[in-house]
Amino acid sequence: MPKIEPALAYARKNREQAVEDLRQLIRIPSISMTPENQPDVLRGAEWVAQRLRTLGVEDIQIMPTAGHPVVYGHWRGAGQAPTILVYGHYDVQPVDPLDLWKSDPFEAEQRGENLYGRGASDMKGQLIALLQAFEAVGKAGKAAVNLKFLIEGEEETGSPSLEAFLKANAALFACDACLNIDGSILAPDEPMIVYGVRGLAYFEVHVQAADHDLHSGMFGGAVDNPAIVLSRAIAGMRDPNGHVSLPGFYDDVQTLSAEERQELSRLPQGDDWWLGQTGAPSLFGEQGFSVNERVLARPTLDVNGFLSGFTGVGSKTVLPARAMAKISMRLVPDQVPSKVHQSLQTYLKKVMPPSVTWEVKQLAHSLPGVAARDSAVIHAASDALEAVWGKRPILGRTGGTIPIVAMIQDVLHSDSVLVGFGLPDDNLHSPNEKIHLPTFHRGVEAFIHFLSEYRG
Amino acid sequence: MPKIEPALAYARKNREQAVEDLRQLIRIPSISMTPENQPDVLRGAEWVAQRLRTLGVEDIQIMPTAGHPVVYGHWRGAGQAPTILVYGHYDVQPVDPLDLWKSDPFEAEQRGENLYGRGASDMKGQLIALLQAFEAVGKAGKAAVNLKFLIEGEEETGSPSLEAFLKANAALFACDACLNIDGSILAPDEPMIVYGVRGLAYFEVHVQAADHDLHSGMFGGAVDNPAIVLSRAIAGMRDPNGHVSLPGFYDDVQTLSAEERQELSRLPQGDDWWLGQTGAPSLFGEQGFSVNERVLARPTLDVNGFLSGFTGVGSKTVLPARAMAKISMRLVPDQVPSKVHQSLQTYLKKVMPPSVTWEVKQLAHSLPGVAARDSAVIHAASDALEAVWGKRPILGRTGGTIPIVAMIQDVLHSDSVLVGFGLPDDNLHSPNEKIHLPTFHRGVEAFIHFLSEYRG
Repeated sequence: MPKIEPALAYARKNREQAVEDLRQLIRIPSISMTPENQPDVLRGAEWVAQRLRTLGVEDIQIMPTAGHPVVYGHWRGAGQAPTILVYGHYDVQPVDPLDLWKSDPFEAEQRGENLYGRGASDMKGQLIALLQAFEAVGKAGKAAVNLKFLIEGEEETGSPSLEAFLKANAALFACDACLNIDGSILAPDEPMIVYGVRGLAYFEVHVQAADHDLHSGMFGGAVDNPAIVLSRAIAGMRDPNGHVSLPGFYDDVQTLSAEERQELSRLPQGDDWWLGQTGAPSLFGEQGFSVNERVLARPTLDVNGFLSGFTGVGSKTVLPARAMAKISMRLVPDQVPSKVHQSLQTYLKKVMPPSVTWEVKQLAHSLPGVAARDSAVIHAASDALEAVWGKRPILGRTGGTIPIVAMIQDVLHSDSVLVGFGLPDDNLHSPNEKIHLPTFHRGVEAFIHFLSEYRG
Repeated sequence: MPKIEPALAYARKNREQAVEDLRQLIRIPSISMTPENQPDVLRGAEWVAQRLRTLGVEDIQIMPTAGHPVVYGHWRGAGQAPTILVYGHYDVQPVDPLDLWKSDPFEAEQRGENLYGRGASDMKGQLIALLQAFEAVGKAGKAAVNLKFLIEGEEETGSPSLEAFLKANAALFACDACLNIDGSILAPDEPMIVYGVRGLAYFEVHVQAADHDLHSGMFGGAVDNPAIVLSRAIAGMRDPNGHVSLPGFYDDVQTLSAEERQELSRLPQGDDWWLGQTGAPSLFGEQGFSVNERVLARPTLDVNGFLSGFTGVGSKTVLPARAMAKISMRLVPDQVPSKVHQSLQTYLKKVMPPSVTWEVKQLAHSLPGVAARDSAVIHAASDALEAVWGKRPILGRTGGTIPIVAMIQDVLHSDSVLVGFGLPDDNLHSPNEKIHLPTFHRGVEAFIHFLSEYRG
């Protein structure tokens, strides 16, 4: 492939600059969840818009949404060639518990082959890799596809404003396919492309007994305990093996085909890998499914947070008035969040005793999305990764939720492929998030192949 | 009773001074639970010692313990008369959640007939009432009993150092009976004396699955969720009616005698009263027992706090590594905390799955204590309250835990009577704690009767 060599050479010469760009972007604490970081989120958008400007992208706009803005841009240099929509996000997760970080989460520190910082892998690193690749391709010639950019600022809160925004701007974002760069691979030598993501239904359940905190000695035995009531409700939401017990929860779950189970069995992560990644004393989950099937292609229910009463140091003898749990379900086709919501309501109506009042709030929801595996964009991405890694990537799914995948199918009628170069031990959403720099640089080269050699 | 009138007249003339004393003591934030308030706790002890000095008490010492100090003093003015040990505490509970207080918890604010502030009722108000009564009795003559003072600084953390301290100083605190002023009455017109208290066994249960917080999408389905495991364990600790399900929990519980049930049925608080005090949608508790029996004379189990994962605003999709619950049991004779600890361990060993590690920590423990109802000190207290209220006080129990009651029986072989003038709606341990000033002033007069008319 003689035509691509100059672009690869440019990228190799400018690796330090790419890492420096990533450091700059990590320094902006663009946490979308916390109101006090709102100005930082906007700075994140502005940084991305400015970088697109340096690459010759046109029509750049920081477009308002009901929440954080979307960065839009259009590069038309490939004329009649297909248009690929690049989807990414510039927001990041909160950093608590901060005391578990070994270095400042917003001062990217390199230790060995890794660069540590919030968003290094999820997904500022992926965004920088794509932009660096586009710069390299542009310096050496030009891309084989037109590009549109949709870089949002709310992914880490479940993209609450994006669906309405996308529907209102469907014509602007019209495209032939979507390259979603919020992805990852299995190991530095195990390339993967993802064609399916799990959906999400995220709730808060609030329970109240007394109307104020009471002395557990003076009132214990007279009124119910909301933490115990909520614990009992949660205990009944899944069985001890992790099979969800909410009524009708599995009604719409597609049975895994023999072909898909075969493909998932090719994944290199065995039980030891999962144990090593998590440090858990043993693996856990639904009987009759492999761990890869359970994480990638089966629905799950987890408590994400639980708070009640006094949780500081000491033995405060309070009978709490309130208890709150954050409870979320990962969904697979053809589950829909609204039916899961209904199922949760039905269950709670049945189990909640008259000694408490309770309420369910839906915080985020996202459809599961699974793309056609023989689409042009998936073939192009597979070829690009094979060119760099020297072997055919695994066609996989992710257990995570990327609401835009379902939205792109639903609103723009386009397939998505997820291509990104994070690793499973990158500590996404956790302290000491990092990116593996050698893999990051390979990612830049894979994106160069994709942009240069796309055949629509 | 001509002899007592000058003391009562003195107290009535100096009511403002008594309230001002209480304001001064409330201003000292002597929270025993939080390390940062340690200097304030010592200031609380010093304030009490200084006040005793003004009353002619001798041998005053601020005695070190393994934790916060005890204030000791001895008044021998009654010669061959019996010696009464006055027990109280100068420490208070934390004030969180601070935003629910309508005025500064450490700047006592009077609104209507109530004075609001942390410790106003539990129990700085009771301590001031006793000291004011002793002053009045001294100005008009002298007390009929000798007094020793044991005013501790760790009651609100379960008095962890007191038992060892008392054993080491048993001779110093030798007495004929104990007047424990950490008490309350049922309503402004319902005098009560308490002869029994519940015990306490307070634990923290910690559960861990993964060794760090994980992304619930990338790992949900692979490892267990400690919040769900802990919820399931808690759900099995008591049945939906509040009957504790731990193995052997009721083995040592004394059956309530017909006489005691009869006495408890005389208590004026009916279901409406309990509903009004708590604001709960309905009452709750063991079947076969009245609410008064459940709170005063039956053991209970409550979750005092529960914390896991992300509990801030938003939908962070974390699969938490850890969950923690504070769980405590109120005990009645002849339950002992060590057996309850063993029972909890046995239960958790049985129910905890291999997918987690777990640990139980004992934070506080106290024996239940029930005194002989026909002892001299109980008769004296009953007479004193009858003299002020014009009716015989109810002989009751409290659902709360006052470790010193059991310790006094065990170490000093003396009976205790609990006499105090807090009210059930004083918001003990809660925001907007207050004391009802007319009841406080009646309390001063009842203590004047007790001190002047004791017959040993």
